[in-house]
Amino acid sequence: MKRNIYLKKKSLNEAKEIASKLASLIRLGTETVHVVQSLGRVTAEPLFAKISSPPFHCAAMDGIAVQAESTYGATDDSPKVLITGKEAWFVNTGHPIPPATNSVIMIEDVHQIDSERVEIREAAHPWQHVRAIGEDIVATEMVFPENHQITSYDIGALLASGYREIRVKKKPRVLILPTGSELIEPGEVNLSEPLPKIIESNSYVLSNMVVEDGGEPFRHPIVRDDFTKIREALLSKYEEVDLILIIAGSSAGSEDYTRSIIEESGEVYVHGISMMPGKPALLGKFKDRPIVGIPGYPVSAILAYEELVKPLIYQILHLIKPEKIKIKVFPTRKIPSKLGTEEFLRVKVGKVGEKFYATPLPRGSGMITSLTKADGIIRIPPLSEGVDENQEIDLQLLRPFEEVLNTVVMVGSHDLTIDLLANVLGKYYPPVFLSSHSVGSFGGILALKSGICHLAGLHLLDPVTGQYNIPYIQNHLKGIDIRVINLVHREQGLIIQRKNPKRLRGLKDLLKEEITFINRQKGSGTRILLDHELKNLSINSSQIKGYEKEEFTHMAVASLVASGVVDAGLGILSAARAMNLDFIPVTKERYDLAIPSVYFEDEKVQKMIDVIRSKEFKEEVLRMGGYDVSKTGEELI
Amino acid sequence: MKRNIYLKKKSLNEAKEIASKLASLIRLGTETVHVVQSLGRVTAEPLFAKISSPPFHCAAMDGIAVQAESTYGATDDSPKVLITGKEAWFVNTGHPIPPATNSVIMIEDVHQIDSERVEIREAAHPWQHVRAIGEDIVATEMVFPENHQITSYDIGALLASGYREIRVKKKPRVLILPTGSELIEPGEVNLSEPLPKIIESNSYVLSNMVVEDGGEPFRHPIVRDDFTKIREALLSKYEEVDLILIIAGSSAGSEDYTRSIIEESGEVYVHGISMMPGKPALLGKFKDRPIVGIPGYPVSAILAYEELVKPLIYQILHLIKPEKIKIKVFPTRKIPSKLGTEEFLRVKVGKVGEKFYATPLPRGSGMITSLTKADGIIRIPPLSEGVDENQEIDLQLLRPFEEVLNTVVMVGSHDLTIDLLANVLGKYYPPVFLSSHSVGSFGGILALKSGICHLAGLHLLDPVTGQYNIPYIQNHLKGIDIRVINLVHREQGLIIQRKNPKRLRGLKDLLKEEITFINRQKGSGTRILLDHELKNLSINSSQIKGYEKEEFTHMAVASLVASGVVDAGLGILSAARAMNLDFIPVTKERYDLAIPSVYFEDEKVQKMIDVIRSKEFKEEVLRMGGYDVSKTGEELI
Repeated sequence: MKRNIYLKKKSLNEAKEIASKLASLIRLGTETVHVVQSLGRVTAEPLFAKISSPPFHCAAMDGIAVQAESTYGATDDSPKVLITGKEAWFVNTGHPIPPATNSVIMIEDVHQIDSERVEIREAAHPWQHVRAIGEDIVATEMVFPENHQITSYDIGALLASGYREIRVKKKPRVLILPTGSELIEPGEVNLSEPLPKIIESNSYVLSNMVVEDGGEPFRHPIVRDDFTKIREALLSKYEEVDLILIIAGSSAGSEDYTRSIIEESGEVYVHGISMMPGKPALLGKFKDRPIVGIPGYPVSAILAYEELVKPLIYQILHLIKPEKIKIKVFPTRKIPSKLGTEEFLRVKVGKVGEKFYATPLPRGSGMITSLTKADGIIRIPPLSEGVDENQEIDLQLLRPFEEVLNTVVMVGSHDLTIDLLANVLGKYYPPVFLSSHSVGSFGGILALKSGICHLAGLHLLDPVTGQYNIPYIQNHLKGIDIRVINLVHREQGLIIQRKNPKRLRGLKDLLKEEITFINRQKGSGTRILLDHELKNLSINSSQIKGYEKEEFTHMAVASLVASGVVDAGLGILSAARAMNLDFIPVTKERYDLAIPSVYFEDEKVQKMIDVIRSKEFKEEVLRMGGYDVSKTGEELI
Repeated sequence: MKRNIYLKKKSLNEAKEIASKLASLIRLGTETVHVVQSLGRVTAEPLFAKISSPPFHCAAMDGIAVQAESTYGATDDSPKVLITGKEAWFVNTGHPIPPATNSVIMIEDVHQIDSERVEIREAAHPWQHVRAIGEDIVATEMVFPENHQITSYDIGALLASGYREIRVKKKPRVLILPTGSELIEPGEVNLSEPLPKIIESNSYVLSNMVVEDGGEPFRHPIVRDDFTKIREALLSKYEEVDLILIIAGSSAGSEDYTRSIIEESGEVYVHGISMMPGKPALLGKFKDRPIVGIPGYPVSAILAYEELVKPLIYQILHLIKPEKIKIKVFPTRKIPSKLGTEEFLRVKVGKVGEKFYATPLPRGSGMITSLTKADGIIRIPPLSEGVDENQEIDLQLLRPFEEVLNTVVMVGSHDLTIDLLANVLGKYYPPVFLSSHSVGSFGGILALKSGICHLAGLHLLDPVTGQYNIPYIQNHLKGIDIRVINLVHREQGLIIQRKNPKRLRGLKDLLKEEITFINRQKGSGTRILLDHELKNLSINSSQIKGYEKEEFTHMAVASLVASGVVDAGLGILSAARAMNLDFIPVTKERYDLAIPSVYFEDEKVQKMIDVIRSKEFKEEVLRMGGYDVSKTGEELI
């Protein structure tokens, strides 16, 4: 089997330089557009005013237009009478003043004697309350240079300069070609049947990014992994566009044809970039058109676009690419990174106390949610082996800064009611955001200790006292004043296949030979609960098949059960219900929010507590099933 | 005459609070849109994943899918042979793995013996190179809450969660109603005739701003100042929109009907806001619809929109309004401001040395170019009487920060070739910007002295030595190392009416009884030149009618001549030509650029000098007429 090897691997900076050279080869055509529809377009020539603005001397006030000289001498003691239509003319703001006049007297200062005469009691000076011709724009002056991007304001200046149409650069046309036999068009998905293929979404994400950057995308339907078909698609379309993005087929797999197709009809300059995600990206020329090989994994695709294609489109349009807003953050934990590779780490960020803390999201390039949930991106340069906990670093924001400031940062155990809570919080205006990071209950305790969150979600059973959470707080958070609010009581139990085909009845059945189990991570409340229950039942955990395999959320456990990978896992009823699975109750546990007193009175935290105590929230929780809200919102210590 | 008085005048903050209350009355409807066309829309409900992503366990690599257990024991010494189709299945990235398998071995590590057998030399562990079902998105989990604005990335997550359509808030519909008998539709302008009216442009500026903010504008044609017509227009349209903007008619003029029309069919809450520009703005309800009275002057209109309407639209959409980027700047001169009024000062800004300097643009609310040329806005709060020269203040940027960094700041005399220079400089990539501020040659000397510019444009004749510029530099800029580059030699002369109806022959004729003159400001090179020439001719300047009236640019002088306000002014040939006027040569003068040595080697200044020395630039200068480029680009000291 013939395979690709990254013979032309480059650093990201080298690749960007090559992309910039490719961009400089493109000459966009020009077209004429209506000024009123020219927002965001880029001028193709300098624009000189066709007329002056104002186009004549006009009144800046309602009043009478006069020749100033004719008013000289007028005072309170000796008013002057002017004949209307001969010495004085009524004018309203914006109207031309008659040729013989050079001054306007405000209507407030004019006494109309009769239909033919007005009286004034103060002399006017020349050009008072008059906007002179060309005061704003003088005919023939350059209003905008070439390569200027039209703003809303500019439309006013262009219309005032006598333009109805202007000559602008055409939008860069971008062919977007998704390839892969594993893909299905979103329009062909039938949700009532199991999906046989992966939904193609990259091309639509990229199309929208092209639109945002001022280009014009042309999406080609999916082409399957077939050398001839892909080549045909490119050959039939390349002449109609300025730039080609071909998605997938550029990594090192056996059916990755992008590189050989481009080599046949052009040249490959870069194959493989030391960035992560995004490594399999490719840069070349197909015939005389720049072509970018975009990796198939969604995060790789987006980052390859952001780093290589977006600057290229801005350069073609001759615009400076605006940079994302940067803030300084501290990572909530040490982040190792591979030397020699520029890594783009997606993180949640929140302001706790005076510092901004960033918590890494999953790093997999297949995780689109690691971008949609991210508040920002930390770039770890190739010469760094990572970032230390106490190291202040730059973060590029993906959300408005104001949103980050209005975010409650929660770390700890996950519960499905947290999503409900976040949703209801968003109904405030300005909205309050809730960022929740699942690290298990004990992780929440540690986060409170290091001061990196506003609150933690906990359901930690103390086996000695039988009490929840408070013994742990008293034990591990000495010296920190913590207040505890109950969020819910919830049922924990075995999440099992629908209709219970293996006829499980309880924890003891986990010992059966044919039963496989999935566990939660150490330090999670569910894990502690399981161990407690196993101990009570004198079950030896090492005899449970899968006890050593860990997942981090209830939904991940339910998902593995639903897909038949395992038979059972301990989790909450709502997770079982969400996945349409059966559930064997084991026990009811208390889930609390632990909030340091210093943040308790914070306005956004108070709003959150108000929501928790609201009838609307409790009713929505009850609708999920498996919850008891009798203590919800109560302060426990 | 019945006139409006601002009985309901409020501070800007009070007005904003009232606008916010009006916004909270609006409930947007919802509509269904295709996910791929949902960019920027706002979710109308929480969106829960319909399917998991990936929707099945799939290969993360090209290779063979196996049950990990069947590979145990395979080593280099004792390879294991697997039967294809029974123990091993070829899979490509993204394809489902067969039900009985739980692991993928990379194709690189597989030796295909024949069509039925493969050999492996290493055991696989379970779930290696497999993307488990729901790894990214688990069916039923909340993908986005209500009130979430869809980004390009989000479109990927939505498609992957099984959405083809989503329910979003309708765009806020905004009626934009321009009023005023002085206005003409841009489409009705005939440039070959003198314009009888002012081109209506505000409605198009506002329409584009509404689009940028996520609303849907409905522009009404111009309605003339007529109580009944305006009322009819409102009554016929208000039910179709969520918000009404009525332009003009809200100030204190006799034909300003907006207030009384609203009072008749609703209520006026605010009339007059202590902001500048923007004072005549109005807030009220027409029937049950919020209505904003937008002042008619373009800068007032835009600022009233930015401060009152934009936040209102964001609130209706339940989005946080992103703030403009702020930087710290120093004003180049003391800026007085009216106590009790919040002023929005438009400024040019540039980085000179380590500091950012802001130079105010004209403050008139009729000057749209004071916004289109502005790099930023300085807000002077109501309780301030202005800003001192050495006072560091906040500036809100209107341009990308990178552009400001790439801007050469020039202060001094104006010449039309500066616009040409700016235009050619913009052809670099990344572009270099040239910000030029006309304060006359002597103003340029003072700017060099205070270090607020990269260079100054000078044409200062020393009457004693007959030398240009250098004596002034040596005299006034002692201790500053300055290098001087010639830009052009240019003809100065009398700019006069076309065909010379008053039969002027030279400066001496300015003494004639019937001749009116317009002068340039003190300290400008042209003024010094004039005084020098008058002295040589023993002309008493006090006998020239208009000698005391000053304008600040050549074009302003030419404009006054063109409109017949004056008969003559001293200026450059290119200004006369631009306005199609006649010209009587008086003398030829040298126009130089004085550049402190510390900035001479600056990359952007060097690029500018390269342009000045280029054939392209010189040819374009010659095409303007009245210039001599024989020394252009030469260093003079």
